[in-house]
Amino acid sequence: MFKFSLEHTDPNSRARAGLIETDHGKIETPIFMPVGTAGTVKGVHQHELKEEIKAEIILGNTYHLYLRPGMDIMKEAGGLHQFIGWDRPMLTDSGGYQVYSLSSRRKITEEGVKFSSHIDGSYHFFSPEKSMEIQRDIGADIIMAFDECPPFPCEYNYAKNSMELTHRWLKRCQDYLTKTEGLYGHSQALFPIVQGSTFDDLRRASAETIAAADCPGNAIGGLSVGEPAEEMYRTTDLVCDILPKEKPRYLMGVGTPVNLLECISLGIDMFDCVLPTRNARHGLIYTAEGRMNLRNAKWKSDFSPIDANSTASTSRFYTKAYLRHLIHSGELLGAQIASIHNLAFYLWLVKEARMHIRAGDFASWKDKMVKQLDQRL
Amino acid sequence: MFKFSLEHTDPNSRARAGLIETDHGKIETPIFMPVGTAGTVKGVHQHELKEEIKAEIILGNTYHLYLRPGMDIMKEAGGLHQFIGWDRPMLTDSGGYQVYSLSSRRKITEEGVKFSSHIDGSYHFFSPEKSMEIQRDIGADIIMAFDECPPFPCEYNYAKNSMELTHRWLKRCQDYLTKTEGLYGHSQALFPIVQGSTFDDLRRASAETIAAADCPGNAIGGLSVGEPAEEMYRTTDLVCDILPKEKPRYLMGVGTPVNLLECISLGIDMFDCVLPTRNARHGLIYTAEGRMNLRNAKWKSDFSPIDANSTASTSRFYTKAYLRHLIHSGELLGAQIASIHNLAFYLWLVKEARMHIRAGDFASWKDKMVKQLDQRL
Repeated sequence: MFKFSLEHTDPNSRARAGLIETDHGKIETPIFMPVGTAGTVKGVHQHELKEEIKAEIILGNTYHLYLRPGMDIMKEAGGLHQFIGWDRPMLTDSGGYQVYSLSSRRKITEEGVKFSSHIDGSYHFFSPEKSMEIQRDIGADIIMAFDECPPFPCEYNYAKNSMELTHRWLKRCQDYLTKTEGLYGHSQALFPIVQGSTFDDLRRASAETIAAADCPGNAIGGLSVGEPAEEMYRTTDLVCDILPKEKPRYLMGVGTPVNLLECISLGIDMFDCVLPTRNARHGLIYTAEGRMNLRNAKWKSDFSPIDANSTASTSRFYTKAYLRHLIHSGELLGAQIASIHNLAFYLWLVKEARMHIRAGDFASWKDKMVKQLDQRL
Repeated sequence: MFKFSLEHTDPNSRARAGLIETDHGKIETPIFMPVGTAGTVKGVHQHELKEEIKAEIILGNTYHLYLRPGMDIMKEAGGLHQFIGWDRPMLTDSGGYQVYSLSSRRKITEEGVKFSSHIDGSYHFFSPEKSMEIQRDIGADIIMAFDECPPFPCEYNYAKNSMELTHRWLKRCQDYLTKTEGLYGHSQALFPIVQGSTFDDLRRASAETIAAADCPGNAIGGLSVGEPAEEMYRTTDLVCDILPKEKPRYLMGVGTPVNLLECISLGIDMFDCVLPTRNARHGLIYTAEGRMNLRNAKWKSDFSPIDANSTASTSRFYTKAYLRHLIHSGELLGAQIASIHNLAFYLWLVKEARMHIRAGDFASWKDKMVKQLDQRL
């Protein structure tokens, strides 16, 4: 069963160290969750996620998995854990975000969303009940409520109506889950999602509604969609102030290493983002000393390790010049090495944050790290 | 220094088991050499080449490495072994084949070949001396003579003139190597290349000329370029009959698992081919029981391991249904898993062939395997 224990709170910020327990094992928070879109973290083997990256939980995308391989195969496989060979915790999103961002044609009604597949144009319908049904079929340990994620910028009235729809849909998600059981013998915890764009009164109202729904954990959606970082921090701060302390807080789709540290200090416990892997494929590499664009000529004869301090053995083994050559030549191995590197760095960063929260010096460490991380090497 | 010891010859065929020794270690023959075009076997980590695939030697392509990263970086790195982090034997081709197959504009003269880069259209010139110079810069343990590889089909007179040019170029390669030394303190063995298209008298003449050049090993080029398999076997047979027994024989660019076994039985010791990795990326998987096209719907809910008998742990860990999903979805991990699988299978196959040659039952084992390998699963 899902359980969250709040272990430490930083004296000089709202940063927290906690522990999530699921039927597939424990997750120490704050945590970053690598995104395994279609049942794979792009370019990374499952054993590398465990041994090199030290991932404690990974994400799957409901929209992608619903379209491919489809739920018949998913159920026959015994769920996503079995299908991909991952025995640690997993989280799935609701499918909503991809419907809004990937599908070219979609129609939102009270009942749900009709959309056409970005793969073959075929029409499909997601409702709160359908999203829950699919997430039952996938079988992640943490599942997300079906929401509407409004674009940025967004009219006040659109944001308000959308938020209220998201709240009504949450009730339907909860009702569906109450009436059904997980398919694979392990429990599934529902996280509802705070919406309200960047309007403070809407965010407050949404946070209160979500808090009152009394779910095992809570998420903040609709951020990192194009708004300035300061808006994101302000909204996160405001929402964290309302969401209950005794439950984990998940900020969806965020962000850069600096975003992670700033939002940890505001009280966020969980993050996911495609940034580390997407940027890796384009040669942008994060280290504790700053970021490197390996496409730059300055790295072409730098035969030092990619990152001598990396927790990933591949980042200590291969050189910057070699990785630059691979990225420059469009070689698969470049994407592989860089993806492992960035994810290992993100996991190192949240683990380090956790250590400093427990040691009581998170706030000063964070200020120092934010300056370092912002450097361009 | 380069050394070849012929250990066993099969009583019922010309199959041989031998041992090549180089300054970077030993190679048991017959051997398959994975192709690391631009300093990387596509989709495969160096540690996977060693631990999963059990590669004893890999190839680099002179043409690709010359264009990217270029010889300045190569020399600064201390050669290709250092640049990519591979401490076992390596072989480079002469660059000629890619000039003919990749460059859209090229002009062959007695002096050499002027060609334009397939990357940026810039003009370059390869001569026998230039190819040797580049291969000195790269520093592989085995380097190839600069030849012209005529297309198939090919006019008799073109093939004859081309072959004679290749022979004259060999002399220039040898002269260049005599006057120069390797850059990195280890020795480099030159293999010359038999040409002559599919004309028996030309192949005989070429084999005699190449044999008389008295190099440490000999190669057969200009095959597997579109001619029927029977032509390839006939030509290989004819050439192997002339090339000296006490030196390794390398059949360039060949081939399917069946091609390997048939040509081993004709006396070939070394192979390279992009087929196992290229086919892997398209979902064609080789096993001892036959080949599978994972794009076929029949595998979509087959949750058995890709190959329970594979020497690669990833092929025993992941399922056919999962690999099919990855290939079908165009995911990098699909190419990675399938590439490791096919290469591990090729290395297993030649190791198995070697075992049967040593046991004296290669010919009967080969006949049985060829039937199995030809099955479509």
